[in-house]
Amino acid sequence: MLTYDLERRGCLTRYEYLYRCVREDIVLGRLAAGERLPSRRALAAHLGTAVGTVENAYAQLEAEGYVEARERRGYFVAAGAMESRPQVPERELAPPEEAESDRTWLLDLKGGGNRAEGFPFSVWAKLMRRTLSERGEALLQATAHNGAVELRRAIARRLYQQRGIAARPAQIVVGAGTEYLYNLLVQLLGREGRFGVEDPGYSKAARIYRINGVQTVPIPVDGKGAVPQAVQAADVRVLHISPNHQFPTGTVMPIARRQALLRWAAEGARYIIEDDYDSEFRFTGRPIPTLQSISPEGPVIYMNTFSRSLAPSLRISYMVLPVHMLADYQQRLGFYSCTVPAMEQYTLARFLDEGHFDSHLSRMKVFYRSRRDAVLEAIQASPLAGRCQVYGQNAGLHFLLKLDTGRDDRTLARLAEENGLRLSFLSEYCLETNDALSHTLVVHYPGADLERLKQALAVLVQLL
Amino acid sequence: MLTYDLERRGCLTRYEYLYRCVREDIVLGRLAAGERLPSRRALAAHLGTAVGTVENAYAQLEAEGYVEARERRGYFVAAGAMESRPQVPERELAPPEEAESDRTWLLDLKGGGNRAEGFPFSVWAKLMRRTLSERGEALLQATAHNGAVELRRAIARRLYQQRGIAARPAQIVVGAGTEYLYNLLVQLLGREGRFGVEDPGYSKAARIYRINGVQTVPIPVDGKGAVPQAVQAADVRVLHISPNHQFPTGTVMPIARRQALLRWAAEGARYIIEDDYDSEFRFTGRPIPTLQSISPEGPVIYMNTFSRSLAPSLRISYMVLPVHMLADYQQRLGFYSCTVPAMEQYTLARFLDEGHFDSHLSRMKVFYRSRRDAVLEAIQASPLAGRCQVYGQNAGLHFLLKLDTGRDDRTLARLAEENGLRLSFLSEYCLETNDALSHTLVVHYPGADLERLKQALAVLVQLL
Repeated sequence: MLTYDLERRGCLTRYEYLYRCVREDIVLGRLAAGERLPSRRALAAHLGTAVGTVENAYAQLEAEGYVEARERRGYFVAAGAMESRPQVPERELAPPEEAESDRTWLLDLKGGGNRAEGFPFSVWAKLMRRTLSERGEALLQATAHNGAVELRRAIARRLYQQRGIAARPAQIVVGAGTEYLYNLLVQLLGREGRFGVEDPGYSKAARIYRINGVQTVPIPVDGKGAVPQAVQAADVRVLHISPNHQFPTGTVMPIARRQALLRWAAEGARYIIEDDYDSEFRFTGRPIPTLQSISPEGPVIYMNTFSRSLAPSLRISYMVLPVHMLADYQQRLGFYSCTVPAMEQYTLARFLDEGHFDSHLSRMKVFYRSRRDAVLEAIQASPLAGRCQVYGQNAGLHFLLKLDTGRDDRTLARLAEENGLRLSFLSEYCLETNDALSHTLVVHYPGADLERLKQALAVLVQLL
Repeated sequence: MLTYDLERRGCLTRYEYLYRCVREDIVLGRLAAGERLPSRRALAAHLGTAVGTVENAYAQLEAEGYVEARERRGYFVAAGAMESRPQVPERELAPPEEAESDRTWLLDLKGGGNRAEGFPFSVWAKLMRRTLSERGEALLQATAHNGAVELRRAIARRLYQQRGIAARPAQIVVGAGTEYLYNLLVQLLGREGRFGVEDPGYSKAARIYRINGVQTVPIPVDGKGAVPQAVQAADVRVLHISPNHQFPTGTVMPIARRQALLRWAAEGARYIIEDDYDSEFRFTGRPIPTLQSISPEGPVIYMNTFSRSLAPSLRISYMVLPVHMLADYQQRLGFYSCTVPAMEQYTLARFLDEGHFDSHLSRMKVFYRSRRDAVLEAIQASPLAGRCQVYGQNAGLHFLLKLDTGRDDRTLARLAEENGLRLSFLSEYCLETNDALSHTLVVHYPGADLERLKQALAVLVQLL
C-alpha cells in the first residue's frame, strides 16, 4: 500500500500533498504504467485521513492524465506518464545574481556617474500623485499603440519649438527606450539590404541591428560626420547617423553634407535614421536644425530619448515617422501594444507641458557646463597640459582628449587600470582600425570625481 | 539688400528670426552659392536693429555651414547649401488619428469588455504612493537588465507556490509585455530552423515571429493539444504552445503528451516555449503542472503576463529561462536595459508580496465564474439551446460554442454584423482550413452585455 506521511505536508493541504506524492511515484517509475492504485477508502484508512482527501487527489491525478479511472474497477497508472529525464548537458552555471563590480576608481571615465543627479524628483513625484488622483481608473486602460495622444501632442509641441520639426502627433511613436525602437525599426524597414552605421559610433545600435538579423556596414566619420562618398560606395539601404552631435567624435554635420545625404536617400528607396540622442546639451549657439526639419517629407526617421535627459529608469523614447510611412507602420506594426505604462506617459506629458522639462534642462546645462569647465581647468593646470589636446567640448556630455603618447591604447588602458584609472578610448568605438583615432580618450565628464581628478591626472601623465 | 520685417518674428528673438530668413533664402536658392552677404553694420542699419543681432545670426549660419566667413572680406553663401527638394512620391496619407470604432453592438464577442474591471485601483494607487515616498530618488536608477531583484523574487515565490516552478530569481526576465518578450526570444534562440505554432492558436505570437524573420509552421491541435507526431513531422526547432489551457480551444494537455514533447525537445537542440497566459483563471481542480515544473532543467522557456490579470495598461510580463541558457542570455542580450520602469516593478513586487494579487484573483474568479454561469444560463434558456453545444468552460475567460448551422462562418459573421452582433469564430484562429473547427464561436464572456444577451441570442438563432 502507498505510504506517505501526511504530517510532512508543510503548508500544503492534505489532498495536494497526497497528489504530489503519488505523482512523484508515477513520474519516477515507482508506480508502473497499468498498475492499479488502492481504492480511495482503503488508502484513506491506511493514511488515517478522510476519503474525500484521497478522492480529490485521485481526481486531480486523473484530470492531468497521470491516472485513468476505469468504471467500477478503480484507478490505474496511465501509460507514458513516467518521466524519461531529458539529458541536458551540464553547461556553464548561471552568472551570479547582480554581479555588479564594486571596485572604486581614482578616475572612472566609463561609469558616467549618477545619471539622474539634478533630476527634480519632488516635482516628478508630485505630478505622479496628481496623475493618480485625477486620472484614476482610466490609467488602467491601454493607451494607443503609438503612445497616449496627450504625450505625443506635448512631444510635437516641443519638437516644433526646439528642433524646428513640424510633426503631427500621429507621426510620433512612443516606446520603452531607444533600444526597443531600434527593434521596431528593423521590423518596419525590413532586413534586406544593409544598414550603414557610423564608425566610430554608438555601438549598441549596430549591435541591435545585427542581433535582429540585419547586416551592418561601418561608414567612416571625418571632421564633418559620416562621409557621403563612403555611404554611396557601401551600397546601404538604411543609414543610421547622429548628425547633430556625432557620437563619440562630437562632430556637427554641415548643411552641404546634410543636403548631400538627403539627396542620396531620395535617389532610391533609402532611409536615414537620425539619432538626436543628446541634442538637449548643446553649450554654444542655437541647436543645429535636424535633417527631419530640412526635409520634413523626406525619408528621415527622427529619434530621441528621455532616458538620457531625465533618468535612466524611465524608459521613454520616441521616433517621428515621415507621413508617407504611417499607413505601412499602422498596418504592419499597429497591432503592438504600447510598451510604456499609461502612468509614465501622462506624467511626462504634464512634465513637458508645464515647463518642468525646460527648467530641468536649463539647470542641467549650467551644472554640466561648470562640471566640464572644472575638468578642463584641472587638465590645463596639470602636468598633462603639455601632452594633450581637447576636442568637441561645445556639446554633449563628453569631450575628446588626444594624448601625446607612444603607447598603444590597449597597453595604456591596462596600465591605467592597474593604477586605478578606468579609461575610455575612442578606438573602442571604432569598428575598423583607424590610426588617426588612437591615443584619444572619450571623457564622460559628468562621472569624473573632481576631488581626486588632480591626483588621477598626475598618475595618467606618468603612464604616457 | 536683404529685407525682412523683424516685426513678423512672432515669439522668436530678432537674431533667430533673421537667421531663419537668411537660411530660407539660401535653401531656396534666392541667395546663390558664393554670393556675398551685406556687412553686419550695413544690414543692421537697413533693418533698424542692433549690430549684435546680425552678428549672432551670421555666426549661427556659419556654425551650421550655410555661410563661410572670409577674413576681412565678410560672409559668403556656402556651396551646396541649396536644397534640392527630394522627390518623395505622394503615397497614401496617414490614417486618421485614433480611428477607434465607436459602433455599439448588441453583442460583442471580440471586445473583451473593460479588461481592468475589478482591479483594486485604490490599493494599487496606495502602493504607488508608498513606493514613491519610501524609495524616493532611488526610483530614478535603472534596475537590472532582467528586472528589479525585488520583483523577480516575488515572482519566483509565486511561481513556486502556484505553479510548482522552482526558479531562481536569476532565471527570470521581466519585460514590457509578452509581445516584447517574443521579440527577445527570437534574438536569443536565433532565426534558423522553424518555429512551430499551434493551429488554431494565438495568432499574435506567430505574427511577431514572422515579422522578426522567423519561418513558422502550423502545428495542428487535437483534443489533447499540439499533436507530437505533427511536431516531429514539421521538423521545427522551437515549439510555442499553451499546454495548460490551449488558446482558443481550451484543451489541457495530458501528462503523457507532455512527456512525449519533452522527450522530443531533449533529442535535439530544440526548445519549447510554454505560454501560460491565463493559468490564473482555472475554475475547477488545481492548476495543471507546467512543463517547466515537470522538466525544470529541460529546454523549456516558461512565459506569463500580468497585463491580462491586472490591467491592459500595465505592460509587465516575464519569462523563466532554464539555468543552462543564462550565460548565453547574459552575454548576448544582457546589454539591453529593462523596459519596465522601476516604479511599476517595485509597486508590483509589493502587490504580490502583500497578497493583493491573490485576493484580486480570488475575487475575479468568483466574478468571472458568475458571469460565465449567467451567460451559460442565458444560452440554455434561449431558443439557441437546442442548436448549440458548449466546450471548454472550465478555465480561462472564454468558452467555445458549436453552432448547428448550414451557413459558413464568413456568411454568418457578415449576417450577424448586419444585425448588431460582433461574433468571434474559432476558424479565425486557424492557420489552415479545418472543417471540424468551423461553426464554432469563441465566447469571450467577460465582455458580454448580460442585459441584452437574451435579445442577442434570439437574433443569432434566427440567422443560423
